[in-house]
Amino acid sequence: MGGRAITLLTDFGDGDGYVAEMIGVLLSAVPDAQVISVSHGIPPQDVAGARLALSRYWRRFASGTVHLVIVDPGVGTSRAAIAVESDGRFLVGPDNGVLSPALAQAGAVVVQLDVPHGASPTFHGRDVFAPAAARLARGEPLLSLGRPHASPIVTPLAAPVLDGDGTIRGEVIAIDHFGNAITNLDAVPFDALAVAGALIPVVRTYGDVGVGRPCALVGSSGLIEVAVRNGSAVQVLGLAIGMAVRADPRRA
Amino acid sequence: MGGRAITLLTDFGDGDGYVAEMIGVLLSAVPDAQVISVSHGIPPQDVAGARLALSRYWRRFASGTVHLVIVDPGVGTSRAAIAVESDGRFLVGPDNGVLSPALAQAGAVVVQLDVPHGASPTFHGRDVFAPAAARLARGEPLLSLGRPHASPIVTPLAAPVLDGDGTIRGEVIAIDHFGNAITNLDAVPFDALAVAGALIPVVRTYGDVGVGRPCALVGSSGLIEVAVRNGSAVQVLGLAIGMAVRADPRRA
Amino acid sequence: MGGRAITLLTDFGDGDGYVAEMIGVLLSAVPDAQVISVSHGIPPQDVAGARLALSRYWRRFASGTVHLVIVDPGVGTSRAAIAVESDGRFLVGPDNGVLSPALAQAGAVVVQLDVPHGASPTFHGRDVFAPAAARLARGEPLLSLGRPHASPIVTPLAAPVLDGDGTIRGEVIAIDHFGNAITNLDAVPFDALAVAGALIPVVRTYGDVGVGRPCALVGSSGLIEVAVRNGSAVQVLGLAIGMAVRADPRRA
Repeated sequence: MGGRAITLLTDFGDGDGYVAEMIGVLLSAVPDAQVISVSHGIPPQDVAGARLALSRYWRRFASGTVHLVIVDPGVGTSRAAIAVESDGRFLVGPDNGVLSPALAQAGAVVVQLDVPHGASPTFHGRDVFAPAAARLARGEPLLSLGRPHASPIVTPLAAPVLDGDGTIRGEVIAIDHFGNAITNLDAVPFDALAVAGALIPVVRTYGDVGVGRPCALVGSSGLIEVAVRNGSAVQVLGLAIGMAVRADPRRA
Repeated sequence: MGGRAITLLTDFGDGDGYVAEMIGVLLSAVPDAQVISVSHGIPPQDVAGARLALSRYWRRFASGTVHLVIVDPGVGTSRAAIAVESDGRFLVGPDNGVLSPALAQAGAVVVQLDVPHGASPTFHGRDVFAPAAARLARGEPLLSLGRPHASPIVTPLAAPVLDGDGTIRGEVIAIDHFGNAITNLDAVPFDALAVAGALIPVVRTYGDVGVGRPCALVGSSGLIEVAVRNGSAVQVLGLAIGMAVRADPRRA
Repeated sequence: MGGRAITLLTDFGDGDGYVAEMIGVLLSAVPDAQVISVSHGIPPQDVAGARLALSRYWRRFASGTVHLVIVDPGVGTSRAAIAVESDGRFLVGPDNGVLSPALAQAGAVVVQLDVPHGASPTFHGRDVFAPAAARLARGEPLLSLGRPHASPIVTPLAAPVLDGDGTIRGEVIAIDHFGNAITNLDAVPFDALAVAGALIPVVRTYGDVGVGRPCALVGSSGLIEVAVRNGSAVQVLGLAIGMAVRADPRRA
C-alpha cells in the first residue's frame, strides 16, 4: 500500500528550489508519502484563484489526503497558520480564505499552528506548513498540532442576485487556461446568457455550436461557463473577471 | 514493489485544478499508482505536438505502464474515446490521432470507451479517460473496457520525398524547447542540409561547430535536427514548422 | 517503505517529452523509486540559477537521495559527466559547476561517468545521467560507476568585500520568482542596505514595512534579500543580477 497522498498548491514557481525544499521536508518525515505538485504557477498572491482550484480537487482525493495550499501574501505578518480537518481530508495553509472550500463544510475542525522557534519569518511553507502536513500524513491527530482556532476567514463565492423581473444576475469569477469564463451561476433557466453586450446561447456541450462560436454551458464543476468552441471566450468576447452576466429570457 | 506508473500529458495547464481532479480520481482508484505528470503545457489543442512528445517517451516506460494523453479539441462532439494496448503498454485518450505512435505498431488493439451516464460533456479527462486508465492500472483487461474500435485515426509523420536528382526533401515538423528544428528526415546522405536559404553542415554533435554556429545532426529520437550550438536555431535562422529542408550535395 | 527519491532539475522544459524519456529510463530500472521533478523551467543553459536552486534543496532530502541536475551547455563536447557522493546524498550531472554546492563540502567523492557506446551525443540526460542515477538509486556504490575524477569544476558564490571604511560590498546574485533580489551577503551589521541609489531598511520580516515598501532581510537560505512587501523588488527598484549592494551605516 502506498503512503498517504500530500498535494501541494503554491504561487512559488518551481525554478528557485523553494518547492523542492518543502518536498524534501515532507519526504524526510514521511518517506512513503506520495507528493503531488498540483501547481506552483498560481499568479503571485492570487488567493481567489487558488481557492477556486482547490474547490475543484480537494474532495476528488481519498480520505486521509493532506492538501497543502500556500498562497500567502501575509507571511511575515500576524496572520494565523492553520490546519483543517474537513470531510475526512486534511488541509494546511494560511488563514486568509484560501482554504474556504473545506472550511465552509459542516463539521470542519480548525487548529492554529505554532510557529517553531527558528522558523524563517519569510518561508513558513518550509518551516511551519510542511512540517504540519507531514505530521498529519503520518497519522497524528489534528488536535495535537495546535490550539483550536475559532474564526477562520471564509470567503464564499459571490452569490447570484435575483432581479425583480425574475432574471438572475451573476458575474465572471475566473478565467481558466483555455480562456473559458467561469461564472457564479449554477443554472440558467432561459435559453440565453447576456454578457459583454452579447447574447450567448445556453447549450449542453461544445459540439452544439459551430467551431469558433460562443456558447454557455454547465461546466465540469457545476457552474455556468462561457466558452468558444475550439477558441478562447476571453479573447473573442473580451471577457474579464468581475464582468456581469445575466440569464436572459430572449433567444440567442 | 511500487504500483503501476500512469503518465499524464495534457494541454490543460495545471493552475485551474483540472489536472488535480484527474489525479484524485486515479489515486482514489489505485492508491499505490505512481502518477507522473509529463506535461500540462502542451499548447491548447496542439495534437501534433503531443503526438510527437508521446512518440519519444511511451516505450521508455516499462510494460504495463498506462499513458493518458488528453489533447482533445473534439470533447463534447461525437469523436470516440479510446484505449489502446500496444507493445505491452496501455494508452488512453481521444481518437484524434494523438495516440498514433502506439496505434501504428503491429498488434495494437483498440477499444472504444463508453461515456458513463452523468459524465461532464466538457471534461472527459476526469469522467471517462481517468477512470479507464485507473482500471487498466489495476490490471483489468483492455477488452473489458469497451467494444473493439475498428478504424482509429492514425496520422503518421509526413514522409520525406525522393527527388529526381537523388536528393531528399523533407520539412520541419516541430520546434523544441531549445529552439531546435526537428525534421522528418532520418538521414542525410550528404554533408549539408539546405533550409531557409542557408546551407548547414551535417555533423555528429554540437561540439563539431563553434558556439553560435548552426549545424544539422541526428537528434536523440533518430530524426535530423537543425540546431545552433548554445543558441536557438529558430531565432538565428528564422525557422518555422512546415518549412522545407533538403539534403544537399554541396559542401556547407 | 518507498524506494529512494530521485529528484530532477533541468532546463529542458517538459512539453517535448525529453524529461519523460528520462523518467521512463529511471522507473524502468528502479520501479519503486519516487521521482520528483523539481523544475524543468530553468532558463536554457542557466548554470548559475540551477546551482543556486540546488544549494537550497539538496540537503533537505534524506540521505540516499539521488539528485539529477542537467543544465548542460557543453553536451556534445568533451566536458566530463560526473557523479558525486556528498554528505550522504548522491548527485549526477555535467562537470560545469552546477553541482558546486555538493562538491564544495568536505569529503565529497567524485567519479567520471563513462559514456556508453551508442549514447546519443546530444542527450546525455537520457543515455548517461539517468542510467547512472538509477544505479545509485538501486544502491550500487559510487565508485562502481566510473573512475575517480580529480578536479571537478567548483564555482563558489562571489565573496563579499570588506571596504576600508568597514562597510561590506556585495552584489545581487539572483532574482527569484517573486521578484526578490538575493545577494551574496549573509549579514548586514547596519540598519540599511544601499542598492540602485536607494537606501533600504534592514528588517526582520515583511510585516515590518508597509505594503508596497522595500526592505532588506535575511532570506530563508541565510542570505540577505531585497524585497518589496506584496510586490516585486525587481520592478519597483529596477534591480538586476550583478548590481552592487552595500551595507550602509546611515539610517534608511
